Amino acid sequence: MSLLTVGSVAFDALETPFGKTDKIIGGAATYITLSASYFTKKNNLVAVVGDDFPQSMIDDLEQHGVNTEGLEIRKGEKTFFWSGKYHNDMNTRDTVEVQLNVMENFNPAIPDSYQDCQYLMLGNTAPAIQSMVIDRLHNRPKLIVLDTMNLWIEIANADLMNLLKRVDVLVLNDEEARMLTHDYSLVKAAAKIQSMGPKTVIIKKGEHGALLFGEGRIFFAPALPLEEVFDPTGAGDTFAGGFIGHLVKTDDISFDNMKRGIIYGSAMASFCVEKFGAERIMNLTEEEIQTRVNEFVTLSAFGLE
Amino acid sequence: MSLLTVGSVAFDALETPFGKTDKIIGGAATYITLSASYFTKKNNLVAVVGDDFPQSMIDDLEQHGVNTEGLEIRKGEKTFFWSGKYHNDMNTRDTVEVQLNVMENFNPAIPDSYQDCQYLMLGNTAPAIQSMVIDRLHNRPKLIVLDTMNLWIEIANADLMNLLKRVDVLVLNDEEARMLTHDYSLVKAAAKIQSMGPKTVIIKKGEHGALLFGEGRIFFAPALPLEEVFDPTGAGDTFAGGFIGHLVKTDDISFDNMKRGIIYGSAMASFCVEKFGAERIMNLTEEEIQTRVNEFVTLSAFGLE
Repeated sequence: MSLLTVGSVAFDALETPFGKTDKIIGGAATYITLSASYFTKKNNLVAVVGDDFPQSMIDDLEQHGVNTEGLEIRKGEKTFFWSGKYHNDMNTRDTVEVQLNVMENFNPAIPDSYQDCQYLMLGNTAPAIQSMVIDRLHNRPKLIVLDTMNLWIEIANADLMNLLKRVDVLVLNDEEARMLTHDYSLVKAAAKIQSMGPKTVIIKKGEHGALLFGEGRIFFAPALPLEEVFDPTGAGDTFAGGFIGHLVKTDDISFDNMKRGIIYGSAMASFCVEKFGAERIMNLTEEEIQTRVNEFVTLSAFGLE
Repeated sequence: MSLLTVGSVAFDALETPFGKTDKIIGGAATYITLSASYFTKKNNLVAVVGDDFPQSMIDDLEQHGVNTEGLEIRKGEKTFFWSGKYHNDMNTRDTVEVQLNVMENFNPAIPDSYQDCQYLMLGNTAPAIQSMVIDRLHNRPKLIVLDTMNLWIEIANADLMNLLKRVDVLVLNDEEARMLTHDYSLVKAAAKIQSMGPKTVIIKKGEHGALLFGEGRIFFAPALPLEEVFDPTGAGDTFAGGFIGHLVKTDDISFDNMKRGIIYGSAMASFCVEKFGAERIMNLTEEEIQTRVNEFVTLSAFGLE
């Protein structure tokens, strides 16, 4: 089985209560593919960067088994740049600056060698572009997972509504679920989203864990209680990458296997926040991941007898 | 095994987005003993009310197996009254009015027949009064569980600090844990609280579940995702009542049994919020409770294979 991920590869500059960074590698597709790389080596990326993007970073992705054939490098243009500053509680942040640059007219070309991908992960970008990706695939993938954000719910609602009819799984956070449905109850919000298209809905609640809704069932995965959250940037994308990476590896899209996917995604996200940007998820071992997953078992297991 | 609960028995007037009530029965000890009544019939109450408190409500408690020998009825005085209004998100509320009345000089007398209680639940009231209860017991109970609130952290901090040295379990919410320790991380906050006295700390996170810290271990229990929260009043006390009720019933204070206690407490709290005040937890069957507990198993269970 193989995975196709489409989304941003970017520069981020971050400030948290623990320090600040200059431009470091960021972007949804970066986090997703790095996270998924621990589960599958058939890991294909479609994204666009400018010629200011260092070859060493592309090499890093390749070394993690990410296929960058679909990474377009635009001459004379600059890479998407985002800078943000986190508040003291680490749950909220302000965007300090956005330079769309190459993302302003991202036109995702799908290499022929990617056409047989059975799993499609649409990282956060404009719904019109995400739709274009589905249009350009010769066969519909077995599973399409969509990530989106508050911006698109506000400014591209019609595009998003059309796109929702075409995907299997929607991943979004609690605030976005409430914004999309105008329902405060997440149970009601998930049901409404299911009626919009995706049969499966994953609602991320940050430090409070994540909820999976599907087949009339609900699964709750905790987030690992951490002493310190150093930098939450990319945690949601890392979660999505672990989730879909596990599905690709096992080629099983049952509800029970999605539960395991959520646990793997949560484990990957718990690493992501330990260091700035993608630093921690670029340097993980299989053993560390397994140990972390076992912590989730210990954290939430109970027997009634 | 038997339980002694000390705390308020009160009148509440509530307003939520779903409606409002006149004076209905409320108070921490009311919710705790009603909730615990589904687990133990050795359920002893110490509280004070005025002679405006209806005998029919005392009869209701008695019918649930609550021993009201320690419920003092003060002639010519009025029962503690609280009225509050919930905001639309149901997570925050404003206190509209407080009339301390009989609670102003609550002087908890412990009937002789209560002296052999092995489990003590100190419902939320002034730390000086909670300390007095421990002083008046001839033998230290096997387990002392303490609930407190932001008010006492602010205005009776020294009393609270002295009391913390004398209890085994502290139950409080996330905001209170942060206020008490000046630590945002709940993992750090729990460790700091443990150094203040209680070996076990339970941090309630409302709709986000609860965390149990003890023996160097952490357990996370989800809250049941609900379509509608009708009235959250008393949910925290109902949680505490289910928790300690289960411990009394099983007479097992191991970490693993406290995990089950947290699940039973969470199940009881999920009923409490379905109707105004204590209405729902006055009318429950064993079967309903067991079905609800099984929903918690389904909600959080996963296998890695």
